[in-house]
Formats: sequence, structure tokens, C-alpha cells
Amino acid sequence: MDYKYELDIIAKNSKTAFTPLSIASSDEKNHCLALISAQLIKDQKKILEANKIDIDNGKKNNLNSAMFDRLKLTSERLEDIAKGVDDIILLDDPVGKIDGEFKLYNGLLVKKVQVALGVIGIIYESRPDVTVDAAALCLKAGNAVILRGGSESIHSNKALAESMAVAIRQSNLSEFSIQLLPWTNREAVSCLLKLNQYVDLIIPRGGEGLIKFVSENATVPVIKHYKGVCHIFVDKDAELNMALSIVENAKCQRPGVCNAVETVLIHKEIADRLIKPLAQNLTHKGVELRGDETFCSYFPEATPATEDDWHEEYLDKILSFRIVENSDEAIAHIGMYGSAHSDAIISKNQQTCDKFLREVDSAVVYVNASTRFTDGGQFGMGAEIGISTDRIHARGPMGLNELTTYKYNVTGNGQIRK
Amino acid sequence: MDYKYELDIIAKNSKTAFTPLSIASSDEKNHCLALISAQLIKDQKKILEANKIDIDNGKKNNLNSAMFDRLKLTSERLEDIAKGVDDIILLDDPVGKIDGEFKLYNGLLVKKVQVALGVIGIIYESRPDVTVDAAALCLKAGNAVILRGGSESIHSNKALAESMAVAIRQSNLSEFSIQLLPWTNREAVSCLLKLNQYVDLIIPRGGEGLIKFVSENATVPVIKHYKGVCHIFVDKDAELNMALSIVENAKCQRPGVCNAVETVLIHKEIADRLIKPLAQNLTHKGVELRGDETFCSYFPEATPATEDDWHEEYLDKILSFRIVENSDEAIAHIGMYGSAHSDAIISKNQQTCDKFLREVDSAVVYVNASTRFTDGGQFGMGAEIGISTDRIHARGPMGLNELTTYKYNVTGNGQIRK
Repeated sequence: MDYKYELDIIAKNSKTAFTPLSIASSDEKNHCLALISAQLIKDQKKILEANKIDIDNGKKNNLNSAMFDRLKLTSERLEDIAKGVDDIILLDDPVGKIDGEFKLYNGLLVKKVQVALGVIGIIYESRPDVTVDAAALCLKAGNAVILRGGSESIHSNKALAESMAVAIRQSNLSEFSIQLLPWTNREAVSCLLKLNQYVDLIIPRGGEGLIKFVSENATVPVIKHYKGVCHIFVDKDAELNMALSIVENAKCQRPGVCNAVETVLIHKEIADRLIKPLAQNLTHKGVELRGDETFCSYFPEATPATEDDWHEEYLDKILSFRIVENSDEAIAHIGMYGSAHSDAIISKNQQTCDKFLREVDSAVVYVNASTRFTDGGQFGMGAEIGISTDRIHARGPMGLNELTTYKYNVTGNGQIRK
Repeated sequence: MDYKYELDIIAKNSKTAFTPLSIASSDEKNHCLALISAQLIKDQKKILEANKIDIDNGKKNNLNSAMFDRLKLTSERLEDIAKGVDDIILLDDPVGKIDGEFKLYNGLLVKKVQVALGVIGIIYESRPDVTVDAAALCLKAGNAVILRGGSESIHSNKALAESMAVAIRQSNLSEFSIQLLPWTNREAVSCLLKLNQYVDLIIPRGGEGLIKFVSENATVPVIKHYKGVCHIFVDKDAELNMALSIVENAKCQRPGVCNAVETVLIHKEIADRLIKPLAQNLTHKGVELRGDETFCSYFPEATPATEDDWHEEYLDKILSFRIVENSDEAIAHIGMYGSAHSDAIISKNQQTCDKFLREVDSAVVYVNASTRFTDGGQFGMGAEIGISTDRIHARGPMGLNELTTYKYNVTGNGQIRK
């Protein structure tokens, strides 16, 4: 099949839809979002039937229970999805906000204005709720979106996209503002990744294979939402109970997410007080412990950790431990093995904390708090398109603001350059 | 030659240099910049000798006079280059600045902090002054830089880089903070463009061929500094003398730069008053005029413009003209043919100006001013690495701030996620 030809048309339609959408008023965009939310509820029956096909196919393909959990829609979940769209209506429109204003030596008035980013391609895996969340966020920020979900949820995604299309056609906005690709294979994605003429940004959300494929094939700018190999460094000056509670929370509250902790680094001077209660508590919660030699000498029930463990995003109730000489060694470990997502120190020593905040170059660096707070909702962004693990344009939680760019508006009264 | 092997070493050294450089104090960085400035003056003789080799080679290769002008170094120009480094010392250090601070519902204090961006590859053409400017700007923002200049200036660039290396070795910073690639061919660039493990950003500055090559081959993030097809729209409500003066300035003050105007769009209702004096004035200044049919009917001495003219960055004393029905047609022309660099309207009608500011989606949009002000120096940034024509991370003039990214520092007292 000639994806290039088809995708050219789709992407060109997105670009054409972008121009009016980028300058649409907040009221127009919010009205459209309200229509979408209502239509999703109206189309509940159709959407759940489509979802059932995905679920049945998933059973045939032996999906694991975590995948079923992400895939399955119910009336309640669909209501939550619609509620999510309603919540986006309530968020401030970032487009048109003034980010700074200054007068030049010659009287020119310069305003830095937030504007919509462009046509955004979102490439994601099996979660149908992303189809609606991502579309609604992009639309609110004035961006046209091209969605490409995974094959497991294709029937659900198509039903959700069709429902959104019905809603958009009742609004002032172009129906091409939100488009779902009907193909779930890599060839189609590969074409999309090279449409620089029409596509301004690709956001891939997913596992190593997907991210690697996108990175290697894209000529369009990419902001990766990659893995979280998050660390907690328990300093010698840590409060013991705080360390126990934060490590447990960061691993156990929801082990399958990117901001869960994967490796705990322990200052050697607190090892003998910390390890026993910490290890017992975690084992009691069903966590498998893997440790370096010193850790295992304190807690022989732990599995010896290998080099691979330090790189691993377990996404599961597994946690690795390493004893370090000092904060420098902890910071160096995080720099070498971390994914620059979220890393925390637990310490009462202000100087050590300041050093950690300055020297750990991750999207979010914590002092005396769980890494689980790296989240657009928790950060007060209202909703997020994901967590960027890249350094360009946006780091950490990406909300509406991060889905915009800026331009300079300069007003004069005849100024010319001397 | 196995560029991959060599470049891996170079880029890895850059990454290693980046970590201490990213957290170096302003004093350390400024001290290093002062050493560089002094060393360039000390090494004047060596640098000018090296430049003479490039000039002699250029003569053999029949470089045009504009290229010689960019290539040639003199004592005065070298002093200007050193002075440019001194000016960068005086600029505020962007690293560590707090970009925003907020408290979450649970008491967590979140600070958004500016941090160094990483290892930056600058790919440029024949201007040896860029070697020092770019290196000094990157260093001040805490970034390690890999420079790759054009073959015409390779001897000058090597001499300048060697001089900077001598200076850095006297400072606390790693000598790998600034590295110049000794190769000027495309194979070496091609390798550099794929070193995602070590390189965080590529900034190509140059003509269409270079930009296209980089875009198509890079897997590392790229911020393009591409051409400026800039427009001035003279509205029916324009002040005539202002229009004459701004168009002349935007074309003639320095025709060979990206923020010079290339196409003037004229509202049909002002055509009969504007065209004659404007065309005579420009012709008098030696500008070649190309126009659409209507323009040529007013000024038959003009050459008929073709479709190609609307896409063209002349970089010369050539200017194209088109008569438009209204501001919508002007805005549509700019959207279709412009390069989203700098575009201006001349009008006394506030409503038309506001519409133009809102609907023209270019990096810099002007009302009643020359497009020639799109420049880091003019914008008060002090110095610039170039003018971004991309939408991601930075648009328009890129100074020190745009060479940084951010992270979130979050401080708590034991917060865990419920």
C-alpha cells in the first residue's frame, strides 16, 4: 500500500485545519470540546461494542492482565474520559498569553506571545483513553493532531475518533483538526515521521522498541516520552522513618508507571540502621529486592544485582539497591544509569540537598518527597500529554503550555535600522 | 576513514566535559572567557597567517567578493571578535535562574530552574568569527560545543580553536568544552548527526543544501537556522512616507542578510499612490524590481515576477511586488510563501494591525517597523547564536536563554502520593 500518498493527504489536511484552529477563540475551542464530551456519552453503546472486539482479540492474543486493564472500557471509564474533556474546558487557554514584554532602545515594543505549536503526531500504544485525552489537549492549545494508536485498541480508537469527528462537524472547527490513522503498522508510522512539510512535532509514548524506531526514523522534530529509571538516594543525614515511607510509596503505590522508583542508593553510614527495617517492610509488601554485594551482606535474602539491573525500568514490584560512599557517588550513579526523569534525595542536611538539586540533571529533582509526584495533574497543569524525557522544548510533565510555542509581536511607529 | 570511531571519542569527551561545565559558577566561566579573549589577541599573528592560507585558497577557487568579505580576518576584525567575547562575559548567566515557583496542594515547593542544555553541535559555513562567537555563547550557557565550520575557513577555524584551547587549559574547565572537528566533509557531519547518546542538539546555520542535508540525516534534535523570505504588507491605511522609508531600509540597508525583505505586498487601494514613488526610489538605489501583472501595469520598467520569485530569498538588491485585494490575501500569501522568519505590516488601522499580529504565524511579526530588527543584538539579548526558523524550543533570535533548558526542583518534608 502507498502510505506516502495517503499520509500526504491526511497531513496536508491537518496543516490546513491548523491555521484557523491556531487562531480560534477559547469559546470556539471550548464549545467544540463540550460537543466532544457529550458525543462520547451519546455513543457509549457503539464505543463499548468496539472495545469488546479489541478485548476479544486480546484474549485470542493472550494479552497480559496489565494490558487488559489499560485496554478495557466500561461505562464508568467512558464517563471519566468525557469528564477529562470537561476538565480541559476549564483550563486556561495558553494561546495568546503574553510571556514577556520589553521596549527596545529605539522605542519598539516587543511582546513575546504564546501561540499554537502546529500539527502534532501522537504515537502511542494500547490505551484508548489517550485517543481522547491527547486530542482534547492538542485542540485546546490550538494544535491539529494526528493520532496513531496501537493495534490492540484499534477498534476502540476508531469508535472514539468517529465520535469526536461527529462532534467537530457540529462546531466551527475543521473536522481535520483531529485525525486518527487507520493503520497500526510501522510502515505507515515511518512515512508520518518524515512529513516535515506538514508535521511540526511527533510525540511518541511507549516502550523501548517504539521510541527507538521513532528516534531513528524521524526527520520531523520529536519529543520522546521514554522510560523512567528513577532513583532515591538515602543520605547519611536522612530521617529514617521518612526514608521508609517515601521508598515504599515510590515503589508500591503504583509500580507500573514511569515515575515509580527503580533503584535506591544508600549512604554507607546509614546502611546498618536503614537496611533491615526497609528491606523487611518492602518484602512484606511483596517487593523483590536486588542488591549490590554490600546490600546483600546486610540482607542476605536479596538477589545479587547485575549491571543490567541499574539500567532496568522494572515497572513491577522489583527494586534494586546499591550502597554508596557519599553523595558524589550517588549523583554519578544517577548520571550514568538514570533516564533523567525523576530522582530524589532524602536528607536533613541542607548543603547536601542543595548539591543534589544542583548537580542531578533530571527533569524533576526531589528533596524529601516521593518521585511519584512527577505528573501533570499533581503539578497543577490540569492534564498532561505525557512526561518528556528529552531536553529540547519541554522536560518533565507536558501540559497545555508545553504544547505551545511563541512568536514576537513588535510594534513601532516607523522605526528603521541605522 | 572511520569517522564514527573518531567522532564517538570526540562526542563522548564533550559529554564528559558538559557535566562540570553545566554546574560551573559564573565566575569560572567568565574567567575562562577572559582567557580566551586575551589569547586571541596574543595569537593574532598565527591566526592571521592561517587566515591568509584560506584567502589564498579562496582566490584559487574563485570565491565571490561576498564570501571573501565574510572570510577575511584583519587585526581590527580579530579585535572585534575578542571584544565580542568580552561582551559575553558581561551578560547575565542564565544558568540557575528561577523561571517560576509554585506550591502544590500538599505543600511541595516546585521551582522551575534554567539549566544548561547539553552538548551542542554547530554546523556553519564560511565565517570564522562564528567559531569564536558560538563557542563563547555555548560556554557561557554551560554547554559543551562541537564546531564544524566550512572548508573555505578551515585553517582560520583551526587557528582560532587552538587559541581557545590554549586558554581553556589555563582555566578550571575541561579542554573538551570547546572542540572543532578537523573534517569539513559531509560524511563526518553525517556521523555527528546520529550521535544521540552524546549530542543533545544540532544547530545548522547555512544555505538550503546544508539545511536539507542536516534535516534529512539527523536523529539528534535540530533547530534550523534557515532562510528568511520576509514580507512587508503595505496596507491601504499606510502612511505613505513611512512605507517608503521602511521598505527601502528593509531591502537596502543590508540586502545579504536573512531579515532583509524579499517581497512587498501592496493593498490595491494604495497602489496608485504608492507604487510610483516607491519604485522610483528603489530603482534609484539600484534595486531590481519584479512584479505581478498589476504592479507591472503601474511600473512597466519592472520585470514580470514568476511563481519562483515568491519563494526566493534573493540576498541581493532584488525585490518582488504583488498587489493584493485585502489583508486576508496578504496574510495568506505570507503563510504560503514565507519562511516564518520576519514579516511586517505598515498601517495606521489598529484593527488591521491587530489582525496581522494575530494571524501571521512568523517568529517575529512587525507593525510599522523594518524587518531588519530581527537580531539578538537589537532584541537586547547581547549576542545571538542565530535566528531559529523552527517552531520547537526557540523561535527567532536565539541568545543565551534559548541555549538553556529547565528542570524542576521540588522540595518537601516527607510527602508521599496518596
